[in-house]
Amino acid sequence: MKENQNILIKIGNTIREERLITGLSQEKFALKIGMDRTYFSDVENGKRNISILNLEKIIAGLDIKISDFFTKVEKGNH
Amino acid sequence: MKENQNILIKIGNTIREERLITGLSQEKFALKIGMDRTYFSDVENGKRNISILNLEKIIAGLDIKISDFFTKVEKGNH
Repeated sequence: MKENQNILIKIGNTIREERLITGLSQEKFALKIGMDRTYFSDVENGKRNISILNLEKIIAGLDIKISDFFTKVEKGNH
Repeated sequence: MKENQNILIKIGNTIREERLITGLSQEKFALKIGMDRTYFSDVENGKRNISILNLEKIIAGLDIKISDFFTKVEKGNH
């Protein structure tokens, strides 16, 4: 289970890094992609076992490919 | 929404392709990774908005990296 929680944290950290590159706050990014800000904040903190459709929505908002996103998740020094 | 459903079908097709490479039936693969067979069948058919932890479990069972899995999803002729 620790292993599993680990990937949620890595995904959240990668989302945060990429979102910061966009220059948008959590609130503005969540608004842009039509997602609840509190939910999005939880995802960035690795607290949500997010569904693939919601994750796809976030990654699309970050303007990167899903495969490239996971390459970052796997390579990141989280 | 069609766009969204599309990725679920692409993911399901990629899982099926990779699962067939393992030589395991849906039932045996589901048993191997400790997942309900009916749920796993639904995922292969693109009928479930699967969570990232369940998807990770499947991809780990396929013995490939998540980034490589999504490269296949994006490149696949589904």
